[in-house]
Amino acid sequence: MIQIQGWAAKSPKAALELISVDADDLGAEDVEVLVEHCGICHSDLSMLNNDWGFTSYPIIPGHEVIGTIIAIGSAVKGLKVGQRVGVGWNSGSCMHCQECVTGQHNLCSQALPTIAGGHHGGFANKIRAHWVWVIPLPENLDASSAGPLLCGGITVFAPFLNFDIKPTHHVGVLGIGGLGHLGLKFANAWGCEVTAFTTSELKVDEAKRFGAHNVITSYDTDSILKAVNSFDLLLVTVNVPLDWATLLKTLKPNGRMHVVGAVLEPMPIPAMNLIFGQKSISGSPTGSPAAIATMLEFAARHNIAPQVEHFPMSQVNEALAHLIDGKARYRIVLDADF
Amino acid sequence: MIQIQGWAAKSPKAALELISVDADDLGAEDVEVLVEHCGICHSDLSMLNNDWGFTSYPIIPGHEVIGTIIAIGSAVKGLKVGQRVGVGWNSGSCMHCQECVTGQHNLCSQALPTIAGGHHGGFANKIRAHWVWVIPLPENLDASSAGPLLCGGITVFAPFLNFDIKPTHHVGVLGIGGLGHLGLKFANAWGCEVTAFTTSELKVDEAKRFGAHNVITSYDTDSILKAVNSFDLLLVTVNVPLDWATLLKTLKPNGRMHVVGAVLEPMPIPAMNLIFGQKSISGSPTGSPAAIATMLEFAARHNIAPQVEHFPMSQVNEALAHLIDGKARYRIVLDADF
Repeated sequence: MIQIQGWAAKSPKAALELISVDADDLGAEDVEVLVEHCGICHSDLSMLNNDWGFTSYPIIPGHEVIGTIIAIGSAVKGLKVGQRVGVGWNSGSCMHCQECVTGQHNLCSQALPTIAGGHHGGFANKIRAHWVWVIPLPENLDASSAGPLLCGGITVFAPFLNFDIKPTHHVGVLGIGGLGHLGLKFANAWGCEVTAFTTSELKVDEAKRFGAHNVITSYDTDSILKAVNSFDLLLVTVNVPLDWATLLKTLKPNGRMHVVGAVLEPMPIPAMNLIFGQKSISGSPTGSPAAIATMLEFAARHNIAPQVEHFPMSQVNEALAHLIDGKARYRIVLDADF
Repeated sequence: MIQIQGWAAKSPKAALELISVDADDLGAEDVEVLVEHCGICHSDLSMLNNDWGFTSYPIIPGHEVIGTIIAIGSAVKGLKVGQRVGVGWNSGSCMHCQECVTGQHNLCSQALPTIAGGHHGGFANKIRAHWVWVIPLPENLDASSAGPLLCGGITVFAPFLNFDIKPTHHVGVLGIGGLGHLGLKFANAWGCEVTAFTTSELKVDEAKRFGAHNVITSYDTDSILKAVNSFDLLLVTVNVPLDWATLLKTLKPNGRMHVVGAVLEPMPIPAMNLIFGQKSISGSPTGSPAAIATMLEFAARHNIAPQVEHFPMSQVNEALAHLIDGKARYRIVLDADF
């Protein structure tokens, strides 16, 4: 019997404490990874707090894992022990539904989140996942900061792949935080004209350094209206209610407002704001294994890395407090110190 | 000075009366059409009532025109006197913006609606329009019933063209009226599996005759949930608030809810219902001249005609009352009798 050590919360908002959990024999299709680094994502907080209602306790959070393969099951394909890999939001999927067999495993209705359904996440010494969700890391990508690409990065990168965004397009990014700063970097590297929306004057220079050509420093209606008819893609990374009807006016004809922030309050959308200009609103959940691999290759080639702060994993509670206080610039990575 | 005779309302909800209006010399790029038939669209009512706030009175409604060209300006292209043509929601556009030069004239921000901005519509003996918006009718299409294709028809047809709907897709049509019954016919001819949603038990057999393979006879939440994970495209032709959040659950992964009914109340959309399954909500305004021509050719080839009731144009007020009473089955055509 293998034991996994991990930092777990036993109830909503409880401090994390180190626990040991027994692990079964490794499944034939599964991979065991020795965790080296793990990013903290806002959805780790949502799951710790049971904001979405499907947390099972004790929960070991962490789904932006970088590590090295230490064991593989007999049916694992394309991976070997010793390889450096990443694991993101999902750790399994049914492999036989229409979505899985067309390479869209992240849309599988049976997809197993890394930190739900009794699966243990990456704030641990080891993690396991189905081989399809274990993505080899390009050699020229800095492993110590790559973790946040596995969830935050793919979440903002996938829309560029999925919706045929072109380098000639104009892209707006709402919210310059863990997701948004990566959205700026990817949009810039994609060749687009990039506009950042932030409420923080302090982030203007950083937004430009991340790749924004223009910065709008408010979400109020007048400020939004300055950007009327500007964007082919508006990437919404915030999770608070905004003036959605007015934001739709910043789209060009055929423009798309794509929501990746988990805004809990329903968005009141006037049909007319979609009809005039043939506009769309959409959302997406992280990305497929193939999209993650494509993103990692693109990030390595364009030298795109999350801007991170490091904490030893044993200081996970301090790191979470830093995130909750809104102080993270822009993503936190825990370094395993078991 | 040419005089045009038309049925006009002089204030919101006033009865229509026959008036004469002076027309300037025909513009170089304009076409004059002798009206033979004109459909009544729900948006004629909305404009008569100034529901959208941009009606100018007196208004001569009518934007589903079938007639014959009786005069052309010196710069008109591709049309000649004597040709049978149709004119729909738009009668002009700037011709030089990005949308016009890419063949998406219906998305031109300067597009001139046939019944707004001082332009007179088709409840008249004559109508004028820019040549690009005057669409030749295929010879094997029945002219007396074709009018409603020019607005109602293209409105439900354009999404099939624009969003890459395939014959393998499953399509739901919400609301079986003037728009919806054409949506069923086009979806069926497109090769799709077709499901109709209606609140009227009386329309079940007719919906099947129009091409529905399945009929759901309620918009309540339980009935909608029977169709969970069913549709690639859900075409919303109603203009009343529905349980939008639940309707999104009837979409398959990558599914699209496309709104062509002018629902006035903002739709409360939970972001999570878009994020899980990578779903979209969109809208569109009628269609481009090229799309209208493509639709007419497709309708002629597949023998698709609106199901219409005829009224002499001089009985326009009786015809409007019939529509307001919800008795139209399924579209009304006025036959010119000046």
